[in-house]
Amino acid sequence: MNIGIIGLGLIGGSISLGLRKSNFGDKFIGTDSNHKNATHAVELGIVDEIIPLQDLILQSSVIILSIPVDGIEKILPSILNKIRSDTVILDTGSTKYDICNSVFSHPKRSRFVATHPIAGVENSGPTSAHSDLFYKKNCVICDSELSAPDAIEMTEKIYSTMKMRLIYNMTSKEHDLYIAYISHLPHVISFALSSTVLKKFKNENEEKIFNNMIGSGLTSTTRLAKSNPETWLPIFISNRNNLIQAINVYLNQIEIFRDLLKNKDFHKVDRYMKNAKI
Amino acid sequence: MNIGIIGLGLIGGSISLGLRKSNFGDKFIGTDSNHKNATHAVELGIVDEIIPLQDLILQSSVIILSIPVDGIEKILPSILNKIRSDTVILDTGSTKYDICNSVFSHPKRSRFVATHPIAGVENSGPTSAHSDLFYKKNCVICDSELSAPDAIEMTEKIYSTMKMRLIYNMTSKEHDLYIAYISHLPHVISFALSSTVLKKFKNENEEKIFNNMIGSGLTSTTRLAKSNPETWLPIFISNRNNLIQAINVYLNQIEIFRDLLKNKDFHKVDRYMKNAKI
Repeated sequence: MNIGIIGLGLIGGSISLGLRKSNFGDKFIGTDSNHKNATHAVELGIVDEIIPLQDLILQSSVIILSIPVDGIEKILPSILNKIRSDTVILDTGSTKYDICNSVFSHPKRSRFVATHPIAGVENSGPTSAHSDLFYKKNCVICDSELSAPDAIEMTEKIYSTMKMRLIYNMTSKEHDLYIAYISHLPHVISFALSSTVLKKFKNENEEKIFNNMIGSGLTSTTRLAKSNPETWLPIFISNRNNLIQAINVYLNQIEIFRDLLKNKDFHKVDRYMKNAKI
Repeated sequence: MNIGIIGLGLIGGSISLGLRKSNFGDKFIGTDSNHKNATHAVELGIVDEIIPLQDLILQSSVIILSIPVDGIEKILPSILNKIRSDTVILDTGSTKYDICNSVFSHPKRSRFVATHPIAGVENSGPTSAHSDLFYKKNCVICDSELSAPDAIEMTEKIYSTMKMRLIYNMTSKEHDLYIAYISHLPHVISFALSSTVLKKFKNENEEKIFNNMIGSGLTSTTRLAKSNPETWLPIFISNRNNLIQAINVYLNQIEIFRDLLKNKDFHKVDRYMKNAKI
């Protein structure tokens, strides 16, 4: 069975390595618009061969679409046009509504499975890929009733091979709302905190002070700001409305905290902290 | 040489374990207002003996004051009243201005060294203490010109033994302003994010969805919200003005991001992310 990976970055690369580790699939073929990533992917054993997209579509029994979400939305319909009738195609995008919407009325919609394996690190590219990225992490399958039973079954096999926990019964619309809070908002928070400290410590002397005083608290709260803007801008655009809603709820929470502090309502600051345990 | 540790939690416990690992000091004596912590500290080999505060003050060549910052501010003057003329006392509080101010005119001010070893984990208590907590981390010594040279020298020995990097030339006032951005603000951010997701996923079904979708991004951004309110409320109170300033700068950064997204100014969202690299 040939597995075709479109997009040989962190996510596509890690899926490939995870499957190969368990001897799932026979030949792994791939394509990436970034020539350097493609070369690395072969060198790292992520895929056996780089082949043109059109050939990959025809030669694969399973296609994994792991490129930025705007790219997925753009090419998914045309890939569906061309795939064999028994091929399964799944995507790994961090937003699902726009992608599902782009093929909602497509005659081959049932060959497509909309998934979101919730795992990642702040680094990107095939050199960051590793076979255990998804181990015991969660994976959401959206709008599963629109996919053919055999396509769902194949998707389950793929993610179970990597020991992911599968989550069903979620529409792409619900997914995007929830993930705005759980993943996209933390990224915005991290970018904004990095931006804040860069504003505060901007000259050479302040920069030195900053480097002398940085501790693990700031490091973990700004980790996500190292994420690749090429991946994240399309996510923010696609989930814009939900994300703005989440940012507003969060802004309100920060303002409540600030005002309690301002008003010296320390008993309530204490309760705020005690209640904020997840 | 007897080392006296007042406050046998994460910080005091880790200093003690770090020093003992390198055979620094002879007998370690301690006190803690929490009876359970005191018992654990002996069981864990953090101190040899629990003795009353008054005895600890008289028997120690070095006193390490590692209790919440409001407690330090309160008892430091009376400890200074009672110490021997050759004893060194240092504190480990996360704010420094109020503490330094409380003994500014004290006749024995020079026996005190104001330090902030910048390390910590979200867990607290002696059971979380470990000998490597401070390894290669930064430690600020504030207002060092107000401490006697031999007191500074002893402090340097203590922190160097644990392989900390020492930072000088900072007033307690400067320290509090910088640390508001570097440490206290990330804590507020983390509490507010936890609070936001708890608001969004509040009923049983939503809670289940939340647990199914949580990923490492949210986990690292809310790690600090697990911190002990008993430690952090006094820090926020003591550094209230600087922290309010830092929160306002940060709120502005979040609002800028939200408005760019709202206005579909995606080119600037991209630039915002690219510039937010620390």
